[in-house]
Amino acid sequence: MASGTLLYAQSGGVTAVINATASAVITEARARRVRVLAARNGILGALREDLIDTSKESIAAIRGLAHTPGGAFGSCRYKLKSVDADRAKYERLLEVLQAHDVRWFLYNGGNDSADTANKVSKLAAEFDYPLTCIGVPKTVDNDLAVTDCCPGFGSAAKYTAVSVREAALDVAAMAETSTKVFVYEAMGRHAGWLAAAAGLAGKGTDDAPHLILFPERAYDEADFLARVEKIVARVGYCVVVASEGIQTADGRFVADAGGGKDSFGHTQLGGVASFLAGRVKDALDMKVHWTLPDYLQRSARHIASRTDLEQALAVGKAAVKLALAGRNATMPVIVRTSDSPYRWKIGEASLDKVANHEKKMPAGFIRRDGYGITAAARAYLEPLIRGEAYPPYGRDGIPAYVTLKNVGVRRKLAAWNEAG
Amino acid sequence: MASGTLLYAQSGGVTAVINATASAVITEARARRVRVLAARNGILGALREDLIDTSKESIAAIRGLAHTPGGAFGSCRYKLKSVDADRAKYERLLEVLQAHDVRWFLYNGGNDSADTANKVSKLAAEFDYPLTCIGVPKTVDNDLAVTDCCPGFGSAAKYTAVSVREAALDVAAMAETSTKVFVYEAMGRHAGWLAAAAGLAGKGTDDAPHLILFPERAYDEADFLARVEKIVARVGYCVVVASEGIQTADGRFVADAGGGKDSFGHTQLGGVASFLAGRVKDALDMKVHWTLPDYLQRSARHIASRTDLEQALAVGKAAVKLALAGRNATMPVIVRTSDSPYRWKIGEASLDKVANHEKKMPAGFIRRDGYGITAAARAYLEPLIRGEAYPPYGRDGIPAYVTLKNVGVRRKLAAWNEAG
Repeated sequence: MASGTLLYAQSGGVTAVINATASAVITEARARRVRVLAARNGILGALREDLIDTSKESIAAIRGLAHTPGGAFGSCRYKLKSVDADRAKYERLLEVLQAHDVRWFLYNGGNDSADTANKVSKLAAEFDYPLTCIGVPKTVDNDLAVTDCCPGFGSAAKYTAVSVREAALDVAAMAETSTKVFVYEAMGRHAGWLAAAAGLAGKGTDDAPHLILFPERAYDEADFLARVEKIVARVGYCVVVASEGIQTADGRFVADAGGGKDSFGHTQLGGVASFLAGRVKDALDMKVHWTLPDYLQRSARHIASRTDLEQALAVGKAAVKLALAGRNATMPVIVRTSDSPYRWKIGEASLDKVANHEKKMPAGFIRRDGYGITAAARAYLEPLIRGEAYPPYGRDGIPAYVTLKNVGVRRKLAAWNEAG
Repeated sequence: MASGTLLYAQSGGVTAVINATASAVITEARARRVRVLAARNGILGALREDLIDTSKESIAAIRGLAHTPGGAFGSCRYKLKSVDADRAKYERLLEVLQAHDVRWFLYNGGNDSADTANKVSKLAAEFDYPLTCIGVPKTVDNDLAVTDCCPGFGSAAKYTAVSVREAALDVAAMAETSTKVFVYEAMGRHAGWLAAAAGLAGKGTDDAPHLILFPERAYDEADFLARVEKIVARVGYCVVVASEGIQTADGRFVADAGGGKDSFGHTQLGGVASFLAGRVKDALDMKVHWTLPDYLQRSARHIASRTDLEQALAVGKAAVKLALAGRNATMPVIVRTSDSPYRWKIGEASLDKVANHEKKMPAGFIRRDGYGITAAARAYLEPLIRGEAYPPYGRDGIPAYVTLKNVGVRRKLAAWNEAG
């Protein structure tokens, strides 16, 4: 039994499989007889000394985490600034870690979390506190550097491709007398990874989605509307997938063009799909429907990708191994060794190379006309949505998702002054 | 081999399992060596003499229909008026049926379709044309009379309950620093069946969904906002499910309150969820997210209910039996014989009793406070979402949905004058 405690925390937007990573972390640590605490609501729990004793959870509950979406210990959107700007917070963090004999800190999140883990590791060194900090990758945005893909993305991508395929079959059947244009809004403020995944829904030229709008390409309304009109004339209907982050050539977010205030002064919440649908209705006078899946797309564990699940488990297990091996300030990453057949393995990246970098979609992934994906994109994306990994269901027809007891650990320090 | 042809047509909004009914109809008819034609795009295809020869489809394709959402032969929104008002159309219909020796007409849809099938049967009798008309139930709205439930509803209900459960886990994990209120918009213009199904997502008082807004109860904004505020204070977050059809006490649709024109004169498409989210933001100043699943909820074959699938298959098979037995102007219906254990069988209803009636949700299904479901509702709804029925998936990670060849039959009549 290694001496000391491992602290695990979840950060940023949760996914369908971040709990699978948690499950693997705890299972691997238990096998090595390492005590695991979890921070409640991410780094906030660590600052507040609000820590959860995972040893109170049954083997069944920890196993059940692998098929439960959301963030079982709570997550947060809380970015620590530079060590200089937020020195008091970093020192408080170290104080809490020290008080609970934390020797390994695993932070499960995106770019920001990798950055935080990196900074904590540097500060610990400065204070001569023996701590191994590991970043554990997670994000539906798929925008982490170094790793070939990010756990969480594959499942959201599968949800997107399957949903677009299904809705397109619905629209196709009804288009003669009903909806001619359908708009699907995909997450992705800066990069069109999820919108691109929708491209997997069809293969032929006239298969849905007929138009994909990427944040990487300027939104040209006249061109867009002309294309919709032509596609409806040729195919009978048109399915559009739009990234929430699309912008006009002058850099304004299209999502902000919708919304505003109604005649009562009430806030109108916009969004890209509703805006585009309105333009199609006004300009083309066609019946249009639209969908905003919002959180459904990142929590849909019921349609998780098996590849994604396996990778989420693998990074959790690898993170514990790296931690116990003292591989400070690193992150386990997915390394693709072959497209066809798809093969991958776990590698290791320095947090310096991951933190605060953003992986953009390669230009070669977007079709020359700007409205679809290329064969290269397909070769990259398809393996990530391959395979199913269904959760078990109860007699009530609902997945048997687990809820942890989340028993707190007794505090040893004075309360943290959040304001200060 | 029975002499004559069976004509099958799909009508109205399609579902995750209407093709399963089609699959059962064709399979049963083939077993009895009856020729099956299908009308392209519902009754329109019959009027246009645009008929599909289902004998050109392979056994595998017809079997594959059972796991393919949408409407494989096309559907339509096209309501025939009374025989007096639309006499020329009804007579054209009979002419087409006669030209193709159609002796059995199966119309797969909701109230309107039952009405049309009923009227066609009466007109055929008037013309001494031997025709057996059968209505085959289908609708995600679950509003058909006589039948205990409607094929299509159970799968949309399962989608709703599972999606709300998953999104709630996401919101719960993030609420501390992010979204506090989440609004889900469910289909249901006149009756809150799908919104009620969301109630299956949780069991305890503080489980999501915390508030369900039914079209059967007047929307009271002050009361709604006060409840949201209290729930956030108590639980930490609040998940709201709203029927698209909710109305204020004076009968105005809340969905129409959103929308309008933006400052550029562009149409703003509203919706209940976006409107409610805007009110929460303005009045409570809380971070809010919302989802409009739209067609995703009725086409989600990937999360179909096994009960629903079995019933969709059963009504298809029963419809052929009723047709060949000459049970004119009837509909096979689901008869519930026991809640626990859930047992059902196929019964038979006169189209007179189904046509143009609308089954409302029983008052006893809505909680006294108006914001949730009762134990009686749960006992009714739960069996309908029970069991999974996954489609097969391809190597590409997408369900292997089938596309039919839909080979047309040679026309025998002059073209139909649609205008006239």
